[in-house]
Amino acid sequence: MIEINKNRAYRKLIVGLDTKVPSANGKKVNYINFDNAATTPPFKAVMKKICEFAPMYSSVHRGEGYKSNYSSELFDSTRSEILKFFNADEKSNIVIFVKNTTEGLNKLSYRLINDKDCVVLSSAMEHHSNDLPWRDKCKVDYVEVDSDGRLLISDLQKKLEYYNGKVKYVTISGASNVTGYVNNIYRIAEMAHSFNSKIIVDGAQLVPHAKIDLKPDNDIQHIDYIVFSAHKMYAPFGIGVIIGPKEPFSLGDPEYKGGGTIKTVTMDLVDWAEPPYKEEAGSQNIIGVAALSAAIKQLNKIGMAEIEKCEKEILKYALESLSEIKGIEIYGETKFMGSRLGIIPFNIKGIHHSKTAKILSEEAGISVRSGCFCAQPYVRKFLKLSPMEIQKNRGLEFDEKSGMVRLSFGLYNTKQEIDILVHTIRHIIMNKSKYQI
Amino acid sequence: MIEINKNRAYRKLIVGLDTKVPSANGKKVNYINFDNAATTPPFKAVMKKICEFAPMYSSVHRGEGYKSNYSSELFDSTRSEILKFFNADEKSNIVIFVKNTTEGLNKLSYRLINDKDCVVLSSAMEHHSNDLPWRDKCKVDYVEVDSDGRLLISDLQKKLEYYNGKVKYVTISGASNVTGYVNNIYRIAEMAHSFNSKIIVDGAQLVPHAKIDLKPDNDIQHIDYIVFSAHKMYAPFGIGVIIGPKEPFSLGDPEYKGGGTIKTVTMDLVDWAEPPYKEEAGSQNIIGVAALSAAIKQLNKIGMAEIEKCEKEILKYALESLSEIKGIEIYGETKFMGSRLGIIPFNIKGIHHSKTAKILSEEAGISVRSGCFCAQPYVRKFLKLSPMEIQKNRGLEFDEKSGMVRLSFGLYNTKQEIDILVHTIRHIIMNKSKYQI
Repeated sequence: MIEINKNRAYRKLIVGLDTKVPSANGKKVNYINFDNAATTPPFKAVMKKICEFAPMYSSVHRGEGYKSNYSSELFDSTRSEILKFFNADEKSNIVIFVKNTTEGLNKLSYRLINDKDCVVLSSAMEHHSNDLPWRDKCKVDYVEVDSDGRLLISDLQKKLEYYNGKVKYVTISGASNVTGYVNNIYRIAEMAHSFNSKIIVDGAQLVPHAKIDLKPDNDIQHIDYIVFSAHKMYAPFGIGVIIGPKEPFSLGDPEYKGGGTIKTVTMDLVDWAEPPYKEEAGSQNIIGVAALSAAIKQLNKIGMAEIEKCEKEILKYALESLSEIKGIEIYGETKFMGSRLGIIPFNIKGIHHSKTAKILSEEAGISVRSGCFCAQPYVRKFLKLSPMEIQKNRGLEFDEKSGMVRLSFGLYNTKQEIDILVHTIRHIIMNKSKYQI
Repeated sequence: MIEINKNRAYRKLIVGLDTKVPSANGKKVNYINFDNAATTPPFKAVMKKICEFAPMYSSVHRGEGYKSNYSSELFDSTRSEILKFFNADEKSNIVIFVKNTTEGLNKLSYRLINDKDCVVLSSAMEHHSNDLPWRDKCKVDYVEVDSDGRLLISDLQKKLEYYNGKVKYVTISGASNVTGYVNNIYRIAEMAHSFNSKIIVDGAQLVPHAKIDLKPDNDIQHIDYIVFSAHKMYAPFGIGVIIGPKEPFSLGDPEYKGGGTIKTVTMDLVDWAEPPYKEEAGSQNIIGVAALSAAIKQLNKIGMAEIEKCEKEILKYALESLSEIKGIEIYGETKFMGSRLGIIPFNIKGIHHSKTAKILSEEAGISVRSGCFCAQPYVRKFLKLSPMEIQKNRGLEFDEKSGMVRLSFGLYNTKQEIDILVHTIRHIIMNKSKYQI
């Protein structure tokens, strides 16, 4: 079935969607990108902004020239645009520019933890980047997930009670990069705050796909920290962001030191600059910031509610279509139950995940990710691997042995693309013997 | 005197050089950029590469799609291009992508130092980024400079002897960002190695302006580590690089952990990936890497020897012209003595440095940097400030009180631009009363 849906209208906003790539039968086919959870192609508005800005590009803050002032203004006003995008209070909260979410979470782990005995609650559905950085700095415990892979809010409550006020941070993904499940960050914030704990949201997956309101600082549902990456927001130019309260960064030393972080340096002493400057050592990625600014403007223009609606429609359509195929296994919920981004993990039974990914690309120009998506503990729960099997695969890249195929949609994907995917999967299953190694 | 020189030919390679900016008398003037030590405008070849690459942009390494393979190939081959650019042995050395030199030096300080008692020799001419990262990790001592600000090689020898094999690293700028003085890194490498120490070169300033050969690993003049930034190499897209031996990064944990850094993760154990992947946590800035690749190709095409020659000519011309002006103070060597990049620090006597910078911009569209250039201890040696004066200015941004004006040239600057600068400085001096606050 070929159907024209609304998302088609948004295709013209994005670079590279009309690319044709070679396929196995020698013909060129339309490239289909179902790997948006890894990174998104750039908005045309982002490329335009960069090309327009390039002739005016100069250093920020410390130069006095015309272009330097121009660049500084663009750079500084973006901080304010970002805070507005999240409804954050500009008086008490700051934007710290980093290069990606992983750097952001690592930086928080260095800056916020100064007591090996404090507890950080992560969860069993986290990406490695919101798990490993905490492990060597304090005691980490993991909120469990249910058999479908959804966060068990009851286990969060249990653990908060168990640690009885010792949990300093609850650090949780806004949405899973494996299943797309969206966590109720406001409810989690409320629970954390009622135990005198703070919440950190790994927003890498959620931010590009749903409206997030950080809520007022004194609201019990206030999101204390959020970290996210521009390269998943159609602005792939090496920029990530931490939003958080200014006050904790006023204390202590930054973990990266150098140009831009100081007021006074002698051979014996250092007076640190005010946050966020203190935390942004070295020359800034100004063009990356300009790209993020253009992406936020474009997202606002489309409207985050509209993006959510479009992507949900594609997700529902894909889940319905894929559920009808015998011979594949969809992990987690197989029906649309709400609170989920456009991400579906699956395997074709009897075909290795990376082989499936390769065939999809070669036969139909479909790009997906295969492996464990940097979330091995979570993926393993679905694959039901025993500790012995895990041990056996050590030393290898784990993803080479065990994994899944992941579809992840952007606002521009269409039902027609899903139809091609479904058609191709059916073709693979019907010709399985040809593809099995 | 208006003279046409060779550098004019290179102007057509660079974005934004024909920009006109408003001046104090209401007329528009040509923008003159003498702030290349902070950052350089992009090469046209870099912008072209980015615009061409954008439609093919995708994630690297972990996707199976056509664009993902295309992006991975571009990304991986750039590592090799970089190693070739420095004549580094590709078998034993790795390229680690970071966001800027400051991150690179901080990363080295976290990764290479695991003994508080070991000694790192920095120098009195370093930028803060090659000083502060080491201070809280080990014992740092500083090789002295002479009255002109040149590194005292005899003091290096003395300190290496004094510490008697305990110096683990000599970390030294390839060239000063304040005076442009080039250090003889090969001689320093030889001295360091003969005391069983290794050399780290902060290449931020030197790399864009001179040919650097890291020399074979077994050469006594081998450069063990070099760190540099693409944004000073006409590719300002948030990329920096560490080159170093693979082996030390095979040991221990990376300081930033998360996606891309591991082979296997369970709740109890982590097997790290091989370097460089282990050190590059999170999604890569692929477009930034593409930009650096294009910049290296363009630099190679022009030839680093040619760039050195052109910039030296401009430096000599500028030093000669400025030396003739009464009423300015040039810091350090006032004549061209060799081994120096196109950087000149000065002040107009009786006018505050930031005021001078502002007037140059407003009167003649000339962009310079003023302050201490993130190298306060070095700058203070020229300004001859007493400890009491330093103490008095604490709490303030130090640069607001004390500092210099810095000219720094790129390969595209012309003698005509120097003439305009000299003319404007003379005009300021003649009308000093008007400009003094």
